[in-house]
Amino acid sequence: MTRWEPNGRGRLELAALALYGERGFENTTVAEIAALAGLTERTFFRHFADKREVLFSGADALHELLVSNVAAAPDSTGPIDAVGAALEAAGGLLQERREYARRRAAIIAANAELRERELIKLASLASAIADALRRRGIADPAASLSAEAGIAVFRIAFERWVDETNQRDLPELIRDSLDELKAVTAGK
Amino acid sequence: MTRWEPNGRGRLELAALALYGERGFENTTVAEIAALAGLTERTFFRHFADKREVLFSGADALHELLVSNVAAAPDSTGPIDAVGAALEAAGGLLQERREYARRRAAIIAANAELRERELIKLASLASAIADALRRRGIADPAASLSAEAGIAVFRIAFERWVDETNQRDLPELIRDSLDELKAVTAGK
Repeated sequence: MTRWEPNGRGRLELAALALYGERGFENTTVAEIAALAGLTERTFFRHFADKREVLFSGADALHELLVSNVAAAPDSTGPIDAVGAALEAAGGLLQERREYARRRAAIIAANAELRERELIKLASLASAIADALRRRGIADPAASLSAEAGIAVFRIAFERWVDETNQRDLPELIRDSLDELKAVTAGK
Repeated sequence: MTRWEPNGRGRLELAALALYGERGFENTTVAEIAALAGLTERTFFRHFADKREVLFSGADALHELLVSNVAAAPDSTGPIDAVGAALEAAGGLLQERREYARRRAAIIAANAELRERELIKLASLASAIADALRRRGIADPAASLSAEAGIAVFRIAFERWVDETNQRDLPELIRDSLDELKAVTAGK
């Protein structure tokens, strides 16, 4: 029996998040995720390579948003500010799914394999940003330093954002962290 | 039969490096490493948890050197320069084993599992540096930003250093990369 499945992908993501949060990533099976989403395992694997990838399916959109925003920055914008603006745009995207992002972050923090995957994802974002800067004519090491420093700014802003006590928006925290980095490197 | 083994650890490291370089990390066994080093597998496992760890055995020394150098920086030194000085000291240690470090880097670059392990090692160094800065009374986010930015500087200097065409020393490249980061964040 085949039927049309409205937003199967989104339902699978939410089901996975609920189960990982409830019983841990390790103790959840694809069959259970599919059942909670009201879909088949086969449908799960049409969307995701494995149960880990459900948590990283947003990476491509983030990648594209960062690269296109770096490319779109005005010519007069220096590399670190082009990266900062791109990160703020990415922060805006994540801000729209704050609760999802927070739960996801807690699940990732609780599992070594997922933490590794997240580090790899961030490293590959840094390298995509560096490539985008080079296409703007920025030479190395300025291109890679701006990209790596930008990812450092993003990570720290993100950690502050997912903190339970935080009330501020991610784009604002990103802007703040970049200003703080500028102050720190200026010896202030 | 038990006999005294002068520098068994160092011999195992060199044997592993030779075999990983020659036939790849995946295609090398602990038995082969031990045989090339003239030691038993049992001795190998007295020194290293597995064949991956042979390549990461220097991490503890690096960790300690970074943390103690951050702690030892003069009170008047700002966080990013305390981190810079610590990284230069670590660079000096690596410089003494340039050929080893270069071969090791090539082996790591060729294997996804090893690249992941390296990323995790760098992330844990960043977090140790941030802790050392907090013990100097530096608040967050300045502490974590300085640490993360420092590791970014280190990575980029290291990449330049292992490049075949490079003739410069690692501490100098670290100094240069930090200056470049300062210039980039100052909008220069």
